[in-house]
Amino acid sequence: MSELRKDPVIDRWVIIANERSLKPYDFGVHGELRKPGPCVFCEGMETHTPKEVFSIRGNHTEKNQPGWTVRVVPNKFPALRIEEPFAHCVDGICESLSGSGAHEVIIETPDHYLELGDLSVDHITEVMYVYRERMRNLEKDHRFRYCIIFKNQGASAGASIQHAHSQLIAIPVIPKRVKEELLGADKYYQEKNRCIFCDIVQYHQNNNQRMIVENDHFLAFVPYAPRFPYEIWILPKKHVSHFMKTEDQELSYLSEILKKLLVSMKKSLNDSPYNLILHTTPFERKGEKSYLESYHWHMEMLPTITKVAGFEWGTGFYINPVIPEDAAEVLRKNIPDKI
Amino acid sequence: MSELRKDPVIDRWVIIANERSLKPYDFGVHGELRKPGPCVFCEGMETHTPKEVFSIRGNHTEKNQPGWTVRVVPNKFPALRIEEPFAHCVDGICESLSGSGAHEVIIETPDHYLELGDLSVDHITEVMYVYRERMRNLEKDHRFRYCIIFKNQGASAGASIQHAHSQLIAIPVIPKRVKEELLGADKYYQEKNRCIFCDIVQYHQNNNQRMIVENDHFLAFVPYAPRFPYEIWILPKKHVSHFMKTEDQELSYLSEILKKLLVSMKKSLNDSPYNLILHTTPFERKGEKSYLESYHWHMEMLPTITKVAGFEWGTGFYINPVIPEDAAEVLRKNIPDKI
Repeated sequence: MSELRKDPVIDRWVIIANERSLKPYDFGVHGELRKPGPCVFCEGMETHTPKEVFSIRGNHTEKNQPGWTVRVVPNKFPALRIEEPFAHCVDGICESLSGSGAHEVIIETPDHYLELGDLSVDHITEVMYVYRERMRNLEKDHRFRYCIIFKNQGASAGASIQHAHSQLIAIPVIPKRVKEELLGADKYYQEKNRCIFCDIVQYHQNNNQRMIVENDHFLAFVPYAPRFPYEIWILPKKHVSHFMKTEDQELSYLSEILKKLLVSMKKSLNDSPYNLILHTTPFERKGEKSYLESYHWHMEMLPTITKVAGFEWGTGFYINPVIPEDAAEVLRKNIPDKI
Repeated sequence: MSELRKDPVIDRWVIIANERSLKPYDFGVHGELRKPGPCVFCEGMETHTPKEVFSIRGNHTEKNQPGWTVRVVPNKFPALRIEEPFAHCVDGICESLSGSGAHEVIIETPDHYLELGDLSVDHITEVMYVYRERMRNLEKDHRFRYCIIFKNQGASAGASIQHAHSQLIAIPVIPKRVKEELLGADKYYQEKNRCIFCDIVQYHQNNNQRMIVENDHFLAFVPYAPRFPYEIWILPKKHVSHFMKTEDQELSYLSEILKKLLVSMKKSLNDSPYNLILHTTPFERKGEKSYLESYHWHMEMLPTITKVAGFEWGTGFYINPVIPEDAAEVLRKNIPDKI
């Protein structure tokens, strides 16, 4: 059984999830070597996972049977459990929450040997569609304040299973990092009456030194102060606070830009592992502050090239050995014309 | 030339230090394998490093010659440079500082094959003495607001050179993570008129389930909400805000507890890589808020067992698969009686 515990000094929650110590590990001891398929996420192995909660599948195919393109199942070794009742406990300097939440795995393809960047734009659009639909569904559970979707690609980026998948975690508190962004963006909005992310979009359209690629609806660039070499942010050009509000047509533009970036990253960074993270506004709840005007959803792609070490843990600052403008030039050069 | 850049949304500075991409790497491609000595940090190789700024050495031995036990040199591939003049630049959403600062390497032993935990308590006391003296020295440079000292042990903890060493970075801003702790501790102090760390010391003296080891002056325990499996905090029992104010005799008590913990970690965690981080109060500067009453210096030891992945990057929260009380029990059991 999991438990959320709060650090008594700073506003940081930690999920103590000892069942996860049992989870299987697909990679070799030296990192990125892969085991051959089939694995439990493969087509034909559906009965080896918890029962699916959502899927995109052909007509006349049955749940938990082959015939799907994207499939969502609860995590077998969850950090949090949906059936756990909500409980809050304060005992002196110790504050805890029961581990109630959702932890789902979004299997991106039935094929053991494909990565997200190998999929067609249409297939990636289906993955993005699933992200949106799961978020819309979990919003209805009023225990949850926030839903994070992320992808760990490769062992050194934290993946334990090689078969292409993303993860979703819905939690009863607004995460520290999200709160920092919400407050930073809100402060800017109070001062200037403008969304800071809209201003960042405009800035990059006028200054192309860190721009990588854009299309009608999205823009990808290396941020001004990236923590990691070749860090990339993807922003919708139009102001939208919630990823959940993204329209179908926009999802395909998002997928087009994702595909181009993944192809460029593979070529530029020698197939580096990476994390992909979706940052969106917390679920709207009665009596809670709204960030509709000031916050703007976006994605971060973080290649795993440098190691986080004592300096970063001690300061919350980062040392990045690659000049952001140089990183953007490399990534821009390797964006394919056609995909 | 380095540059500090501030993220426009949140209060996080990043050091863009492209010279560091040139630094040598002592470990094999698969991680922890080591190259045999001698290396540039070994006794007899003093002329291969930048000139020493401090050392503990025998009488009648000369600077930059053999005969030392602990030696401090500027980092050859510094994140920041002491000779860089201070400059601050704001251009719309982009804010930067010149890369002025100190980046030093504290070589803990002349012996290529010893680790910090292999050294005698007296020798570790010398290392702690050097930490304190360098901090006292750098306080005099009024460009600096904060000095962080940390140690990365092992390749997966971010070390690039195997020879036992710590690092010191003095910077012109108070780091984000430090500010969070200062503010959290100050809030507690305003509410209760007590130091939260003093209360944590008292809590652990009354509740031994996460205690590991203590002596007359220090206490080591697994914190209530640790980010990482087997994370350890070391606190002085007496309220002291600045590590710089630690007295000689206390340094030897600190070293005794460090030695015991390092021996236990080695045995408990199969020689896991780790980060050691010294958290202290910012330098006292005229016109700046003081945290003398509310903040309490301490050390964090973070074994590198789990990987930081998408969830952690996206939320600032952590998933820890080991129950803190279980971790403490293992570490406690392996504390040696005699050292």
